[in-house]
Amino acid sequence: MPMFQRLPRHIGIIPDGNRRWAQNHGMNKEDGYSYGIEPGFELYKACVELGVEELTFYGFTVDNTKRPSVQTRAFQKACVDAVMNLSKHDANLLIVGNTNSPLFPRELLPYTKRVMIGKGLMNVNFLVNYGWDWDLSQSRSNNERKRSFSKRIASADISRIDLIIRWGGRQRLSGFLPIQSIYADLYVIDNLWPDFRIEHLYEALHWYQLQDVTLGG
Amino acid sequence: MPMFQRLPRHIGIIPDGNRRWAQNHGMNKEDGYSYGIEPGFELYKACVELGVEELTFYGFTVDNTKRPSVQTRAFQKACVDAVMNLSKHDANLLIVGNTNSPLFPRELLPYTKRVMIGKGLMNVNFLVNYGWDWDLSQSRSNNERKRSFSKRIASADISRIDLIIRWGGRQRLSGFLPIQSIYADLYVIDNLWPDFRIEHLYEALHWYQLQDVTLGG
Repeated sequence: MPMFQRLPRHIGIIPDGNRRWAQNHGMNKEDGYSYGIEPGFELYKACVELGVEELTFYGFTVDNTKRPSVQTRAFQKACVDAVMNLSKHDANLLIVGNTNSPLFPRELLPYTKRVMIGKGLMNVNFLVNYGWDWDLSQSRSNNERKRSFSKRIASADISRIDLIIRWGGRQRLSGFLPIQSIYADLYVIDNLWPDFRIEHLYEALHWYQLQDVTLGG
Repeated sequence: MPMFQRLPRHIGIIPDGNRRWAQNHGMNKEDGYSYGIEPGFELYKACVELGVEELTFYGFTVDNTKRPSVQTRAFQKACVDAVMNLSKHDANLLIVGNTNSPLFPRELLPYTKRVMIGKGLMNVNFLVNYGWDWDLSQSRSNNERKRSFSKRIASADISRIDLIIRWGGRQRLSGFLPIQSIYADLYVIDNLWPDFRIEHLYEALHWYQLQDVTLGG
C-alpha cells in the first residue's frame, strides 16, 4: 500500500456506471448494480487501512427512483446488501435519506441514527433515497434559524467532504451532498464502477496531495 | 467561430488564478485582478455570437473578503470595472450578493434587480460579495415553505447551470451557486484566468457536446 503525506479526512464516493457496465457485458441495465457491492467493500477496507476517518457512498436518490421499477428494485437491493455486508465489520454506520417514503428500504431503518459496529474504526455513510432538495428543506423552524445553515440540514451528521471520487467519467456532482461538497475536490475515474480497481483510489489520493486547500480564503 | 450541435443554455464562469498569475509575472498578488476584466468581456462577446442565453461570473465571495484589504479593494474594483464595462453593451444585467455589508460596492446597487441594457441579447449575472450560506439561508418564512427550495434562495433569479468552466486548474466548485450547479458539468482549464484565450471556451464547448444530460433520471 502506498504512503500519502496528506490524506483527505472524508472521502465521498459516486459509484456511477453500473447500467452502462451491464449493457457493455450483454446484460440488462438492472443487472449491473449487484456487481457494485464488492468494489464498495474493497474500498472500505483500503480506507480503514489508510486511516481515512469518514467515507460516504452515494447509494440512490429520489430522482433515481423515477427509473423503471425493475431498476429501482435492483439498486434498492444492492444498497441493502452493501449495508448488511458492512454491518458485520467495524464501522460507525449512518444512513441518510427520506424515510417517509415506501422507496426507503425498511431493513435500513435501524441505521438512520449512527450505529457503532465492532470497533467502529471509520464513519461510513450511505445516502439512500436521498434528495438534495429534501436534505436542504429540513428543520427550518424559526428557533433554529440562529444556527449555521450546515447544521440545519437533514444530513447535518455528515461532515464536510475533502475529496469526491466519481467513477464512470462524468464531471458533475448530480446532487451529492451540496453543502458538504462546497469545497471538495472532484476526481473523476473514466472506468465504470463495477470495473473498480484499488489503484483508482491510490491515483485519486496521489492527485489530492497536489491540491491546495484554501476553503475560499 | 466553430459550430456546436448542442450548446449549454447557461454557462457559469469561475475565473480563478489571478493572484498566481500576478506572482508568476513578478507583481504583487492584488495586481492580477485588473488583468481579468478584458478576458471576461471577450468571453461575453463570444457567447453572444454563439447564442448562449445566460452567463454567470463568479466575482468575489464573503469568504474572499477575509484576505488582506489591499486584495479585497483590488477585486472589488475589478468587479465594478467589469460591470461598468458591460453596462455599455447589450445585456440583461443582474448582480447577486449580500448588499447588507460595506464590502458590497455601492456603485453596483442599481443592478441588484435585473436591468435590460441596449438590446439585452443575453442574461449576464455577477456574484458580488456572494456567500453560499447567505444565498441558501434567505426567505425561509413559513408561508414560503410550499415553494420548491430553488425558488426560495437569494439567487432564485439565476437559472440552472448546464456547464461550469473553471480556469486555474482546480477541480472544485468553491461555493459557486450550489443549487444551480447541482447537475452542471464542470470543465477545468489549467491556464490561469488572465491567460484566457477564446480557444479555451471552444474546447469546453466541444467537451460539453459529448456529455450525456440525465438530471439524475
